[in-house]
Amino acid sequence: MDWRGKHVLVTGGAGFIGSTAADALLARGARVTVFDNFSTGFREFLPTGEGVRLVEADLLDAAKINEAMRGVDFVFHLAANADIKDNLEEPRKCVDQNILATYNVLEAMRAAGVKDIVFSSTGSVYGDATVIPTPEDAPFPVQTSLYATSKVAAEGLLTSYAFGYGFHVWIFRFVSLLGPRYTHGHVVDFWRKLKRDPTRLHVLGDGKQQKSYLHVADCVSALLTAVDRAHEPINVMNLGHDYWIEVDASIALIARTMGVSPRLEYGGGDRGWVGDSPKILLDTTRLRRLGWAPTKTIEESIVETLRFLMETPYVERRG
Amino acid sequence: MDWRGKHVLVTGGAGFIGSTAADALLARGARVTVFDNFSTGFREFLPTGEGVRLVEADLLDAAKINEAMRGVDFVFHLAANADIKDNLEEPRKCVDQNILATYNVLEAMRAAGVKDIVFSSTGSVYGDATVIPTPEDAPFPVQTSLYATSKVAAEGLLTSYAFGYGFHVWIFRFVSLLGPRYTHGHVVDFWRKLKRDPTRLHVLGDGKQQKSYLHVADCVSALLTAVDRAHEPINVMNLGHDYWIEVDASIALIARTMGVSPRLEYGGGDRGWVGDSPKILLDTTRLRRLGWAPTKTIEESIVETLRFLMETPYVERRG
Repeated sequence: MDWRGKHVLVTGGAGFIGSTAADALLARGARVTVFDNFSTGFREFLPTGEGVRLVEADLLDAAKINEAMRGVDFVFHLAANADIKDNLEEPRKCVDQNILATYNVLEAMRAAGVKDIVFSSTGSVYGDATVIPTPEDAPFPVQTSLYATSKVAAEGLLTSYAFGYGFHVWIFRFVSLLGPRYTHGHVVDFWRKLKRDPTRLHVLGDGKQQKSYLHVADCVSALLTAVDRAHEPINVMNLGHDYWIEVDASIALIARTMGVSPRLEYGGGDRGWVGDSPKILLDTTRLRRLGWAPTKTIEESIVETLRFLMETPYVERRG
Repeated sequence: MDWRGKHVLVTGGAGFIGSTAADALLARGARVTVFDNFSTGFREFLPTGEGVRLVEADLLDAAKINEAMRGVDFVFHLAANADIKDNLEEPRKCVDQNILATYNVLEAMRAAGVKDIVFSSTGSVYGDATVIPTPEDAPFPVQTSLYATSKVAAEGLLTSYAFGYGFHVWIFRFVSLLGPRYTHGHVVDFWRKLKRDPTRLHVLGDGKQQKSYLHVADCVSALLTAVDRAHEPINVMNLGHDYWIEVDASIALIARTMGVSPRLEYGGGDRGWVGDSPKILLDTTRLRRLGWAPTKTIEESIVETLRFLMETPYVERRG
């Protein structure tokens, strides 16, 4: 796809994934409107230069997203409440920020005649997957978390708009991402705790959860590759690495990189939190058939994430 | 389950399925609170007698459902916007009446400490099913309609509340129901058209769509059987007959029962409307293993539906 001169709206464009995607689109000659409420985004991540517009607003404000959508050619809808672990404390957040926000984006697109959208869903939609690596057409899963439920709902809204209104949708079921601008998740949690007390580390679950991760640059290259090469009205694709690592291995690498040797204290149980999927490894055959492959290992990605956290003090001020 | 003295809240209790379920619960000795906004329900369907309470309100009014939930033991959440065919004209309806309404019911339950809920989902969640008869763990489907999307979202909310808050949930994926108090769907559509003009009938699609149907009494007996005998925290079950009939066969039976011989005019295409699933036959092994079986054929159910429509003039005044 020739992005030159295309006007792309990136929701969550001040966030980890959104800002990285915005940079990549700008580098390919697109104009970018960043739509972000800065609930978790950082001004420091914002792309700069000509061709960038910032709309500071919440997606629940329908008038604002309707207005921002005018003249847009393509949408990257990457804004979300990604706080899986804590969503039971405030269930409304997932409903609002992931379901209603997505509905507002789609309605704004419909009103403005915009039909192309990339969407970040999650590998958590497979719940306690019975097939691993999990393909996109795995057995219909039971949803175990509000976060995954809200993403399944958003996926359904997108595909219904494809059937009903002629939209073209690219839905990616992400594993957890790592890399520069990562500000939220297990690496930052462990890093914070170890900075506070390098002698011990409390670990949710039993340390044996196995999960795949992907570097954010490999993620963005996957999104752009798929838009280039997958042209069905509805494209649903897993996105992840072809192996997983145990939480314990991840901790060992983090500790080594930080130069600390904590005693580990396990919370117990086989999952990190209620609704956690203890094993996440996605079958990415569909995406690989398009010619995409990850370029960084999970271990490299963890180390790079830590380097970013250590070199970027403003990230710590938040959260 | 001994329903005597139990207080059951039935959302949509003035509707086709809800009022039939309410009657069955009352007959088993339960007290029933009917919660209905009368958007499609009928006062004539309301159960009567001691032990019945009516709350006339909308599920989007959180204060009202919160208040109605006090002292309740069990919820039958059967209220929904069931207008699959027209949801593209007003997409917000499915989001509000099926997703947000379900969220409000669950939050009211959580606040009141109520944990048991029966929920009417739909066989449409399987989209264009690739396995027929379709089992509950069929390949993860792509959602083709806003209606099915909203039901998938509601299912996920229920199962997330089971994981997160210890709810017990019985989720039934319904085929279309037939029988007394049926006021909405293909039989009433054909009946209305044929009363207006018995010489011809416009048929959506090509008349070859094949769908399973179930009598509402068999549906309600299935719900009660499952609550009695299935005790997992999460119970997901298909609900339908073990065969299907073609739209053309359904029309022939309706015409014969009405004593008319219309010329058929087909709208064309292999589905009735955008997002319609042209083939619906569910694998009901799970439910049958509990000892349930349908007692009425689809043909009997169609004829009984027509008799009800012919004998119940007030139904025609609506819609």
